Amino acid sequence: MESFVNYIRQFPHYKDHLLDDVLPYLSERNIEAGSYFLEQGKISREIAFIEKGLMRLYYLNDGKEVTSCFCKEHTITCSYKSLITKTPSDLSIHAIEETKLIVFAFNDLQKLYEKDLFWQQVGRLAAENEFITMDCHNRFMNDLSATERYQQILHEDGELLQRVPLNYLASYIQVAPETLSRIRKKMSRT
Amino acid sequence: MESFVNYIRQFPHYKDHLLDDVLPYLSERNIEAGSYFLEQGKISREIAFIEKGLMRLYYLNDGKEVTSCFCKEHTITCSYKSLITKTPSDLSIHAIEETKLIVFAFNDLQKLYEKDLFWQQVGRLAAENEFITMDCHNRFMNDLSATERYQQILHEDGELLQRVPLNYLASYIQVAPETLSRIRKKMSRT
Repeated sequence: MESFVNYIRQFPHYKDHLLDDVLPYLSERNIEAGSYFLEQGKISREIAFIEKGLMRLYYLNDGKEVTSCFCKEHTITCSYKSLITKTPSDLSIHAIEETKLIVFAFNDLQKLYEKDLFWQQVGRLAAENEFITMDCHNRFMNDLSATERYQQILHEDGELLQRVPLNYLASYIQVAPETLSRIRKKMSRT
Repeated sequence: MESFVNYIRQFPHYKDHLLDDVLPYLSERNIEAGSYFLEQGKISREIAFIEKGLMRLYYLNDGKEVTSCFCKEHTITCSYKSLITKTPSDLSIHAIEETKLIVFAFNDLQKLYEKDLFWQQVGRLAAENEFITMDCHNRFMNDLSATERYQQILHEDGELLQRVPLNYLASYIQVAPETLSRIRKKMSRT
């Protein structure tokens, strides 16, 4: 729970009593590697803070998995569009590693929104962050070649490359696993 | 100003006194057809509500204009990422028709955020809306053929097709103007 408290504390206007608002709504959940937090087609009704572990968001395109995001410890994960529009999720979220989550329901977040300005602000900043993340991902996909995408991950989050299986990484960069292997080999020679 | 008041009134928890918070921060601006509200490379510091007229958001890709959005009367327009990250805008915003705006500064919005829960909520819902809009646009670009894109606009906002010049519409659908002309002719025959 300590990392969740630290996460909440970083928002402007945080005060200790605000933690009492949210604590009754939180529950812990462990997800084994390979198991799901959310499956495509279901309506997302929960938001998860990752205490420990690694999750993957993906969708199916012509029957093939396309990874849209990896979510590491101390970040929030959810199928954001499904959550706020109450429509079936076009994304699945599963655990790559054994993962420990702190989960709260979207309905309970609405109660917090009514309770204090602070929570509206958390919601606003989280929404802004979701927007920026999607925009960065669009740029990543539209503006970079496969090699450049791999280089960007290597540069910005080299540790992730140690934790993510090759096939998932390839489906994030959107190349065949064999192509990614070639890119890696080529780069290790230079 | 009436349409702006109606826009604000639609948000949950609206009360008349809230309007007094925002009125001192608003200014009216007229933009001639072809003139700019924001140019690429400048930091966006203003948000505009369109009272009347039509705006276009576009960016340059290899020197070619790509239209990312048309914004009609009674909606908000801004370069959202530039606004919230305080970085140079990768989008330009110009008027297609003579346009009447109600403009407020992002700095003043921050003051409103501090003043009442209501404004944080407006900011959150606006951010959620920006996210949904970008997600829909991603789907529009990734999942549909050029003909399907044209059909979707025809189905959802046929009036827009009467107001937007062919070359702008083509750069939104991301085909050459000649290709769009062919699509239109083919559809008018069926």
